[in-house]
Amino acid sequence: MVEEDADITEKAELEEDGYSLSARVLSAILYAVDTGDRAKLIELMEPLHAADIADMLEQVNAYDRRRLILLYGEEFDGEILSELDEGIRDEVIHVLRPEVLAEAVRDMESDDVVDLVEDLDEAAQEAILASLEDADRVAVEKSLSYPEFSAGRLMQREVVMGPEHWTVGQAIDFMREAEELPEDFYHMVLIDPKMHPVGHVTLGKILGAPRSQPLIELLEPGFRTFRVDESETDVAYAFNQYHMISAPVVDENDRVVGVITIDDAMNVLDEEHEEDIMRLAGVGEGSLADRVSDTVKQRLPWLAVNLVTAILASMVIAQFEDTIARFVALAVLMPIVASMGGNAGTQALTVAVRAIATRDLTGANVWRVIRREVLVGLANGLVFAVIMGAVGILWFGSPALGAVIGAAMVINLVIAGLAGIGVPVLLERVGVDPALASGAFVTTVTDVVGFFAFLGLAGVVLL
Amino acid sequence: MVEEDADITEKAELEEDGYSLSARVLSAILYAVDTGDRAKLIELMEPLHAADIADMLEQVNAYDRRRLILLYGEEFDGEILSELDEGIRDEVIHVLRPEVLAEAVRDMESDDVVDLVEDLDEAAQEAILASLEDADRVAVEKSLSYPEFSAGRLMQREVVMGPEHWTVGQAIDFMREAEELPEDFYHMVLIDPKMHPVGHVTLGKILGAPRSQPLIELLEPGFRTFRVDESETDVAYAFNQYHMISAPVVDENDRVVGVITIDDAMNVLDEEHEEDIMRLAGVGEGSLADRVSDTVKQRLPWLAVNLVTAILASMVIAQFEDTIARFVALAVLMPIVASMGGNAGTQALTVAVRAIATRDLTGANVWRVIRREVLVGLANGLVFAVIMGAVGILWFGSPALGAVIGAAMVINLVIAGLAGIGVPVLLERVGVDPALASGAFVTTVTDVVGFFAFLGLAGVVLL
Repeated sequence: MVEEDADITEKAELEEDGYSLSARVLSAILYAVDTGDRAKLIELMEPLHAADIADMLEQVNAYDRRRLILLYGEEFDGEILSELDEGIRDEVIHVLRPEVLAEAVRDMESDDVVDLVEDLDEAAQEAILASLEDADRVAVEKSLSYPEFSAGRLMQREVVMGPEHWTVGQAIDFMREAEELPEDFYHMVLIDPKMHPVGHVTLGKILGAPRSQPLIELLEPGFRTFRVDESETDVAYAFNQYHMISAPVVDENDRVVGVITIDDAMNVLDEEHEEDIMRLAGVGEGSLADRVSDTVKQRLPWLAVNLVTAILASMVIAQFEDTIARFVALAVLMPIVASMGGNAGTQALTVAVRAIATRDLTGANVWRVIRREVLVGLANGLVFAVIMGAVGILWFGSPALGAVIGAAMVINLVIAGLAGIGVPVLLERVGVDPALASGAFVTTVTDVVGFFAFLGLAGVVLL
Repeated sequence: MVEEDADITEKAELEEDGYSLSARVLSAILYAVDTGDRAKLIELMEPLHAADIADMLEQVNAYDRRRLILLYGEEFDGEILSELDEGIRDEVIHVLRPEVLAEAVRDMESDDVVDLVEDLDEAAQEAILASLEDADRVAVEKSLSYPEFSAGRLMQREVVMGPEHWTVGQAIDFMREAEELPEDFYHMVLIDPKMHPVGHVTLGKILGAPRSQPLIELLEPGFRTFRVDESETDVAYAFNQYHMISAPVVDENDRVVGVITIDDAMNVLDEEHEEDIMRLAGVGEGSLADRVSDTVKQRLPWLAVNLVTAILASMVIAQFEDTIARFVALAVLMPIVASMGGNAGTQALTVAVRAIATRDLTGANVWRVIRREVLVGLANGLVFAVIMGAVGILWFGSPALGAVIGAAMVINLVIAGLAGIGVPVLLERVGVDPALASGAFVTTVTDVVGFFAFLGLAGVVLL
């Protein structure tokens, strides 16, 4: 009953914003599946965008998903596969009848097929490659020969290009006579006789210029190319930094072999952001669509690392068992010092990780940034030292205890600022992703320093 | 000395990746500033992209920044202003001589001016508006009349459109005769006599079709428009979900008043990702370019919230002072239970916050997701219960203590999964950004439950 009420509330919200699938449509679709009413199912799914169908498939359970796909049959479109989360995609490919899969994939552009097959298990990969026509299969296999996460994998192979001496009129005639132009393209690339890129012209400029004008006079400023083996991270950074729309990809001989467009770069940027967030939180590649057992496997290692960290901190506490036995108030207050240090460290570390990712933190300013974080830690530490000093006095009636916790707070927040910047910078230098590993290190530092400073000072001052 | 070594290492890295500014160029620029060598400065800056100049200005200190800008003089370009971080932008605008500022802004497109002035303080805003020509100022003021973060603010006002009955030839002639076409445009929008949008045609399709073909036959499928008052979040979501390149913006009477392009949407998406990361970490709008005092002010409130959380947890511990006094081992082990709960909660909460942002967590699957998280918590809890049980026995020689910590671990990880999903979902329902506030709530729950379960069970079992 509760579930039903929630659905009703949600329905109103979703229909209001107009993008997500409405709960009403979803219920109708599931009802059609229950009753095996194929005509109704097709009628309901017809207006939906492939991306929304993919989202729906991710949101229903595996049993409904299977029945829905089987009933939908050959209507199943290749684009839906492209839009699915990786975990679900494997499952769906195995549910699809081979002839439906073959048909779905045959309509896709070659770079979408690459994107689809590169993450599949081998059996599914072969099933898809086998269903392609020869020319397409060769193209896909060529793309797969480039390293993973490279510009070569990201690019589409169809490039609209022309010789550098062409005029606007020649370019237009060429495009009119072309048998098939790519679905999305934004520039004509000019090349010299050796296929080296000379520059590119936007379609808008071609359309706005007289037929007799040489294309070379319309070249865009700030033209850039990428090498096939360049990392997709660098490509995405350049697109974002320089507001690019498309750029050619060249091979080791500087010959044009493909083109990357902004939507590809946007996908990469999106995935990397997501990865950073997930890694900072200690979640591997988590997705709601994963099975419980997969999620447990993803999260367990991070919790295990945290356990080691926590045990280290406990060992520090164990050194002060006698002190604690005489002043139990210390046990009550000690988590506060550690917790504040952990939070301040996480703040500094998140800013540092993002600044490294966006290349705002470099050799030119690293020392100034470290100095800044230490000062921030000092200032915040002094504020909370005063507050906690007061708490110590008011709660436990002990000025000495107040002084101890205040001093420990200042020490731990300064160290938190230092570790928060220092750890990700050092990890980056040794080639480890700072988003991945910084959290555990910083928390270890702030826990150990927090407990040691507080209990150690207490041992000296109070005993 | 240390700083210099670091710079040398960094230089090699930066030059290798080829995007960030090399340390060598930066030193040369600062040397030119030191010696007041304007010709050299201009020569060094000339090849740099505005985005790279902006990054450089963010990385040097305020003193060098001021001297550099004054020496650079009227070479200063409006695009550099667009690329600067907000905090630094205000400062730079006040350093620029009024006539340089006026000149810099006059060359910008109107939507860039809007983006520039909307975040400025009033004095700087007026200085810029005053420097615009009348027509431009009216356009900018019109855009500023739309609500902040709306499609109306995001759009550019120059739209390439034509009547629905035009042929390809008429469209090309129109564009050739246009006095000025927008810098970036990807579609021609077709409108009916009342200015209502009928659909749009890609420039590629126009270029590839014969002159006699009616444009209406070349319309793109999946055409969408946005209303001026729609939120930029919804716009960015739609661009990402449906792989859009550009879309017209319509007013309340469904008349075309502007167009939004993918680079605008990409910016919004980028900012929102960044905001989510920063909010999850309890960092307001942190940037490395902020002053120490600003950073302290941004982070202090989050640490204060955490302090309240930590004190609440301490109050729970205080209820068990007698138990701890008799078993100091409890003080040693109790942070482990709380820490593991906090980590597991953060994992679940991060997945939930992202799933809400990407609209993958909806009324259709919320109950299944909650069930899933509880099961994940249970499974992980059982694993760590066994491990910690063993630690309790091996370290403290007490099977009873091992059983207590194991049971507390299971309880806390289940609660962590429940709170990790439940808190962000509830916050979303009551209209609070889950990224902003979930962390504090979830940690409070896991700290309180962790200490209460562990110490409470210990009180019952061990005494």
